[in-house]
Formats: sequence, structure tokens, C-alpha cells
Amino acid sequence: MTNADFKVTPWEVSGKVDYEKLVKEFGTRQIDAQLKARLEKLAGGSHLFLRRNFFFSHRDLDLVLKDYEGGKGFFLYTGRSPAGKMTLAHLISFLFTRWLQEKFKVNTYLQIPDEEKFLFKQKLSWEEVQERTKEDMAHIAALGFDSDRTFMFQNSEYAKNFYPMLMKTAKKINFSTAKAVFGFNEQSNIGMIFYPALQIVPTFFEKKRCLIPCGIDQDNYWRPQRDIAESLGFYKTAAIHCSFFPPLTGPEGKMSSSIAESAIFLSDDGKTVANKINKYAFSGGQATVEEHRRLGGNPDIDVAFQWLYTMFEEDDKKIEKIRSEYRSGKMLTGELKQILIDKINSFLNAHNKKKAKAEKAVEKMKYSGKLAKQMWGRMIG
Amino acid sequence: MTNADFKVTPWEVSGKVDYEKLVKEFGTRQIDAQLKARLEKLAGGSHLFLRRNFFFSHRDLDLVLKDYEGGKGFFLYTGRSPAGKMTLAHLISFLFTRWLQEKFKVNTYLQIPDEEKFLFKQKLSWEEVQERTKEDMAHIAALGFDSDRTFMFQNSEYAKNFYPMLMKTAKKINFSTAKAVFGFNEQSNIGMIFYPALQIVPTFFEKKRCLIPCGIDQDNYWRPQRDIAESLGFYKTAAIHCSFFPPLTGPEGKMSSSIAESAIFLSDDGKTVANKINKYAFSGGQATVEEHRRLGGNPDIDVAFQWLYTMFEEDDKKIEKIRSEYRSGKMLTGELKQILIDKINSFLNAHNKKKAKAEKAVEKMKYSGKLAKQMWGRMIG
Repeated sequence: MTNADFKVTPWEVSGKVDYEKLVKEFGTRQIDAQLKARLEKLAGGSHLFLRRNFFFSHRDLDLVLKDYEGGKGFFLYTGRSPAGKMTLAHLISFLFTRWLQEKFKVNTYLQIPDEEKFLFKQKLSWEEVQERTKEDMAHIAALGFDSDRTFMFQNSEYAKNFYPMLMKTAKKINFSTAKAVFGFNEQSNIGMIFYPALQIVPTFFEKKRCLIPCGIDQDNYWRPQRDIAESLGFYKTAAIHCSFFPPLTGPEGKMSSSIAESAIFLSDDGKTVANKINKYAFSGGQATVEEHRRLGGNPDIDVAFQWLYTMFEEDDKKIEKIRSEYRSGKMLTGELKQILIDKINSFLNAHNKKKAKAEKAVEKMKYSGKLAKQMWGRMIG
Repeated sequence: MTNADFKVTPWEVSGKVDYEKLVKEFGTRQIDAQLKARLEKLAGGSHLFLRRNFFFSHRDLDLVLKDYEGGKGFFLYTGRSPAGKMTLAHLISFLFTRWLQEKFKVNTYLQIPDEEKFLFKQKLSWEEVQERTKEDMAHIAALGFDSDRTFMFQNSEYAKNFYPMLMKTAKKINFSTAKAVFGFNEQSNIGMIFYPALQIVPTFFEKKRCLIPCGIDQDNYWRPQRDIAESLGFYKTAAIHCSFFPPLTGPEGKMSSSIAESAIFLSDDGKTVANKINKYAFSGGQATVEEHRRLGGNPDIDVAFQWLYTMFEEDDKKIEKIRSEYRSGKMLTGELKQILIDKINSFLNAHNKKKAKAEKAVEKMKYSGKLAKQMWGRMIG
């Protein structure tokens, strides 16, 4: 959607997003206290992203939980479109999906649409995308999905198996809809125009309700899916949406791998992380130490605080202590940033160690795990 | 193209086609006597379709022959989109392609785009098309292609192998071009809009010039191909075009499997063939025997004569004898029709016998022949 103050499409997020407005415009629903409690109860626990309202909006999550309670089950689907290097923000949907998988023990489909960015970015070559694809899959596998319940697939490899369903999907969506939903125009190439069918097709992998953890900017894709699903004999997909992980450079927009100073890459070493955060992290602190001690900082706009709050400081007591000390001026900007630097570096250290050993997990999720084997033996459609 | 008097698009041919005008409008070239002689010389023989000017137009056929003479070679590509039952007219491009293959000993790619008609015909189901696909492949294999030099592939099966090239192709064609060339509009589904990339991709199977024998109504597809081929590192495709095989019901338009009385199906038995021709074949004869004896018939508009001329009476002397006897009134319409009935029934008898034994040829052309094996071991792009 485009608004006087902000813009949210699958390809661009800018301005200060008013999430309440967004939910209304998109026609999704906020996750209220009751629904959150129900999800947490069924999961037998909570997740930071849920507790801190980072995942805040949904479509049919209530029906997914009802299906689960009724024994019908559901399945999970999310994805990653390779192009630039992966950032911390790219892990969010995967981390949350992994948690849901662990709690609900459901099949999980991870799409690697290795044609999307190739089609959408004029200068990106097919070969570059393929290089990135390998790297990205290792990062994803490092997160510890259940490799017998997870099928990770590149569209370019799995195309044959989902081809019939892909064509059935494409037949149901006309240019008028695609244009309205995705903003295509005369200059859009015919691959871009077709692409929505590719992102929608995994929602038809099982005759159960599909739950998609994703950024709210991806919601566009699920609207035509919900219009056509029932006519194809499937469920309207459900989704659970997160807000945008703020770029280092300020609380507006979203972290983007194409603006290097806005992002921490998963491949950044400790020194780079420290430098970037010290240099670029938008601060809610005052101009001088004296002023900061006197007036205090503003955690609501401080990116270091926001990152700790959303992703890196799981302890509710500790994060509130940081908030109040920062607000009061007791904690300086440099101190706050150092907490974040340490947290990120310890996360990335552990992550990259797992990534270095992820080869086998990638192989299982793609080919030899229980679900993967089933999927290679199936035609979809 | 659309004209006051006739219309030719990949989906519709109607009116009395002015081929000279068509060639000018499409920007193709007529096959002149010199080029025909050169082709026949290199082939070491002629073919009825060439001798009788049924294949009459081309793009870059001269360059194909030059490449052949220079030892660079070329390859052949044509196809069949399953939907309705196959008619005699559907064999034309295949018969000519087979002849070219035999004479030039070149690799031949036969595309079975088993999604095309599904996407373009609202009521046609995927499953119906798949049923027809098997039948159609047997008919094609019965024509006797060299099964070690022929790769016949269904898009739905071979999609994985040509996926990279497919996306590279799609990226080069924008909606504006697709709309102008194919007449898409807001109601066109996104599969239809994407489809041209699927029909174009086999022209990139080899880094040689591709020669496509096809109806001139398919020429649209090769125009965007020729615009983008060189930027992808391939040759502009060449083509050799035939005119339209007239429907039984009259000399205008083209034979169509969706109008049963306009067509002889390959599955028609002898009695059906006789009935249809006697009942529907548009005649150039006179209303009564007496008038016919006196005034003679008009072979130029007589569909039975046209079919004999184009496809079924190979002997140049015999066809000229028929023409003059019919024109003079010596030969009656019933007699002319009987000649055609006998010819068609003898052709269909032989064809269907070969078709019944085509299973192994289908298998070789699809999977285990020399070229097929190579193609399954390759990624295209």
C-alpha cells in the first residue's frame, strides 16, 4: 500500500509505518491478547517475537489453531529469495517458523525461489543467484529445522513436480488482478508477471491449512491465493505477519541488504559488527554525555534498543532494566551499543559454527529426509 | 494480423487469406524459385509440400542453408499442443520436419506444450490434456522420425532442465511486447502471458541456427525470439511456413479440430471419412451432372481437389490429369471425392497401423534415444 507517510510493497518499505493503518488497509487482523494466549497455550510456551508483539498481524490464525485442536493439523510455509547477502532480518521468519515447527511438529516447506530476484532485478545474473542460493540454504539449515519434517526446495529444481499445480494456479489469476495486487505495468517482464503463481503454489502442497510466517510486506501474495484456493479444492492460506526489522540507520523502513550500512550481514565478523553499530546505529541518545545524563535517551527511536528488544535480549527483566536506565540517562549510548554488539557477535559466532556444519542438514532437507523423499516422489496437482 | 478480409493469429484463422499480403505484413519472405532449388539440391530431392508451394514463406532459410553448406549445421524444432483430437492438418509440419531430418540428418526437437491449451481454453482440464498428450505422441512417433536424432518432450516433464533458460527468456520479454504480438489483455491469465517464453525456449537448445517448420499463424512467436536471441548469445531462429490446410467445409480459414465437420481426424474410420467428404467437402462442381458436364468444375475452390493437390496425390502427372478432367467436366464431383476418400483411407490405414506399434518409438524419442539421453543429462541455460 502507498500512503502519504509510508509505503509497503513486497519490493519496497519506506517511511514510518503505521501498523494499525496497515492492518486496516491490508484487511488482516491484529493478534489480540486472547489469540496470543491460545497460541502460546497450544504451543506449550512462547517465543520472544510473539511476546514482544513483533509478530502482530494474521489471517486465519484462529482457524489454524482450530484445525490443530480438532486433529486436522496444518503445515508451515515460508521462504527466502536469494539475491544479496543474508542479513539478520532475513532470519526472522525462519526462526519463528522453526519454533512453530518444534512446538506443533508439523511439516514445513521452505521455498527458495531462485528465479524471483533474477526476474525482478535487471542486472542480476542467473549464475550469481545460484551462487547465493547455496550460501543461503546453509544459513537456513543452521537454524535447526527438523530435517525429516522439512522440505527445502529451489524452484528451479522442483519445478517438474509442481508444474501441474503451477499451471492450474496461473490459469486462475488474470493480468488485471496481478497488476492491481503487485503494481505490474507495461514494462514488467512476463516472468515477473507469472511469478506470483510460483510463490503461491506451495500453499497447495497439502490439503490442510497452510500457515505462513512472513513480513507483512509479503501479504500481497496471499490475497490472490485466498481468492482462488477454494475453487482449486484447497484452503485459503493463513499467515502470521511480523513488522519490519528496523535498519541500523534509523527507525523507519526496513533493513535491506542492498544498503550495506543499514544491515548486519550474517557473514560480518565481530569487528565489522562493532564498527557498523558504533558508526551507523541510529541513536536515541543526546548529543553530549552531559546532556544525556541530564535528559536521558529515547529507547523508542533508538535502533540498538529496538534490536535488543525485538531479537537479542530474551530476558524480560533485563530488557526493562536497559530501557529504564537508558531513558533515565544512567546508561550511555556507547554502553547500550556495546550490549547489542556483544549479543550479535555471540549469536553470529554460534550461528556460523552451525552453518559450517550444515551441509548434511541441507542435503536432508532438500533430498533425503523423510518429507523431502515423499515430496520428490509426488506430483503436485 | 487482422485485415478487412481475413484474420491470422496463433489462435484464429478466418476469411480468405491473401498470402502475399500476409508475408508483407508479417515481414517474412516468400520462398522464391532460386531458394527452393537450393534447398532441393542440398536435400537431394524434393517434397510434395515444397514442390506444390504449400510451404511458401520463410525467415532466414537462406542462412540455414549457408550454415549447412559451411559445415556449421542447424537443428529442427516444431511442436504440437494437445487439446482436441488430431486432424490430418496437424501432421503437416511434422511430415515436413521428418523429411528435412531425413535429408539433412540433423537433431530435431518436438515440443509437446502440455500446458498451452490448458491455459488458453477456459474449460479444458489439465487431466484431459494429459490424456490427449499420450495419444498425440503416438501419432507423431508413427511418422517415423529418427529416434536417435529426435527429442520429443512434454513441457511439464522437461521443465526442470530448461528452467534457467526459460527464466532468461521471460526476463527479456515485457508485457508491452507480449500484448502487441499476442493480443493479450487485462483478462488474460498470467500463465497465458508467460507462455510465449515456453514456446521460444527450445530455439535455444543448441548454439546453431534453429529451423522451425510451422503454419504461418505461429510466426508471432518467432518475432520476439528474433528480438532477444542475440542478446542471449544465440541465433535468431529461422522458420519455414506453410499456408493453411483448408477445412472440408470451404476454402477459407483453416481445418480446426474444434469444428468436427471441418476436419478429418486421424482416428476416423473409413466409413466416417467417406461420409464426411461426401457430405461436407466443399465442391467446385456444378449443381447438376448435366451442368457439370457442360460447364466443368472449379478445382481452385474445390476442397477435395485442394487436399489431393497439397497432400495426397504425389504424382504430378496424375494431379494435372485430375485437374483438367475436373475442369472440363469429364470428372464428376463424386468421382473426385472418391479419389480423395481412397487416398485418405489408405493413408490412415497405414498410419494407424504404425501408430499402434509406436510405443517403443515414443519411449526412445522421449527418454532412451541418443539425443533424448543427452538432453536429460543437460541443463539448458
